[in-house]
Amino acid sequence: MYQENITALKKDAPIGVFDSGIGGLTVAREIMRQIPNEKIIYFGDTARMPYGSKSKETVTGFSKQIVRFLETFQVKTIVVACNTASAYALDELEKELDIPIIGVIKPGAKTAAEVTRNGRIGVIATEATIGSQMYNKYIQELNKNVTIYGKACPLFVPLVEEGLWEDPVTDEIARRYLTELIDIDIDTLILGCTHYPLIRSTVGRIMGDQVTLVNPAYETARELKELLQQYNILNEEEPHLGENKYQFYVSDGAEKFKRFANSIIKYGILSAKTIKIDEY
Amino acid sequence: MYQENITALKKDAPIGVFDSGIGGLTVAREIMRQIPNEKIIYFGDTARMPYGSKSKETVTGFSKQIVRFLETFQVKTIVVACNTASAYALDELEKELDIPIIGVIKPGAKTAAEVTRNGRIGVIATEATIGSQMYNKYIQELNKNVTIYGKACPLFVPLVEEGLWEDPVTDEIARRYLTELIDIDIDTLILGCTHYPLIRSTVGRIMGDQVTLVNPAYETARELKELLQQYNILNEEEPHLGENKYQFYVSDGAEKFKRFANSIIKYGILSAKTIKIDEY
Repeated sequence: MYQENITALKKDAPIGVFDSGIGGLTVAREIMRQIPNEKIIYFGDTARMPYGSKSKETVTGFSKQIVRFLETFQVKTIVVACNTASAYALDELEKELDIPIIGVIKPGAKTAAEVTRNGRIGVIATEATIGSQMYNKYIQELNKNVTIYGKACPLFVPLVEEGLWEDPVTDEIARRYLTELIDIDIDTLILGCTHYPLIRSTVGRIMGDQVTLVNPAYETARELKELLQQYNILNEEEPHLGENKYQFYVSDGAEKFKRFANSIIKYGILSAKTIKIDEY
Repeated sequence: MYQENITALKKDAPIGVFDSGIGGLTVAREIMRQIPNEKIIYFGDTARMPYGSKSKETVTGFSKQIVRFLETFQVKTIVVACNTASAYALDELEKELDIPIIGVIKPGAKTAAEVTRNGRIGVIATEATIGSQMYNKYIQELNKNVTIYGKACPLFVPLVEEGLWEDPVTDEIARRYLTELIDIDIDTLILGCTHYPLIRSTVGRIMGDQVTLVNPAYETARELKELLQQYNILNEEEPHLGENKYQFYVSDGAEKFKRFANSIIKYGILSAKTIKIDEY
């Protein structure tokens, strides 16, 4: 638990960001946009992805290894850029760490609780995130007069990874998943998996204009900025030329990751390295 | 490499069967049908599945751990019931082991080379299996006058795992993947991933009656029987009542695995246990 020794953290230290694979890049992209002076160490667990169909114990074990890896870079804070890992592992990681750590669920839950007018919020996410009921927990801590409807959408991740961001098949699958949320008249929908912002327009078209889509990637970057300000560790200076501002590590398939990452992040990812994560 | 000390293997020892997760159950099912006296230790790597999008190095590392786990049961032979692991890891596993090991690719390749009349064979499989070109290698060793057309079908595995075995979406995706194989007039199609027999009827309907579908699960069980006979280690007696004939282990989610396994194997899977595979 971080508390007292927060003063020891350096402003120019990097931020650690991790995900089961590539979805967390939507969070990294928002951090790059909103706090462009920050250095980022990104880790994607491509050897063991996806997390969304796996158990709490397994996902927590994987997350602990990744945190140990990120700590070798003396990161000043860690962002769990994966809804499944945030749902399953955040509490336990928080206990072990002496630097701040944030997940993507709380920021998304907060925004949803604020923007709903009719008190009916939908959450679409992986099987694991929905099963954990963590969005429900956080939203109801903030607003008791809200009903939350969760819907697992297991095919969205493979469809996104196959590149079918705009496709009749994705439309058809999305229609099946979303119909019940339309029928119960939600006015707010949380995109509760970091892959989903990539099919935001499909989801938005099917849900209609009257439904507000909440993107936890955006909200997380905003909350991260506030947190860094609060502890006075926001990096005020642009990293020097030649400093490796954004570093990417994966547990498998660095070249493939780089190609996909470059289609999401337009900053130009120069390199990604493969490391053996189960040795941490 | 097994050779001389084969006489040390016991007839009533179990057979080890492994896969990245659940697909290998189609192979286990064929073994149960064709050589019903054999005991089976099945391992599904559900914590790290799928393998089909991952690298040779990663899949080989995972496979070695699994083989070490299976060896703790004094198995008399090992079946790599996963096309990706057969493509990437079989050669290396063979070098290390002193018991026989077979994969699913060679048996499927052999049958395809025999049944084709026009010399045009299609292979559908994961990205990894297609990229490895192992079906091409084995088929052309047997028959040089054959042309092989490989097509990676990455969405088939998630569609099968989502239970959409008979569904318009699976039809549409299958049509996209298979059109080019129809256009080039193949007469034989290998179902080169252990999940695919579960959508065999969809694939068969789209390809038409003139195309022979080869199911490596069936061919592998047949080859396994021949191998056991050849080394005189076929189990001649039905295991005693009370002996645990079929044992299932996974690296994650034993209950979920059990439910899925029971929908594939009608023998009634009584239990599945979760073990920590990265400790092997």
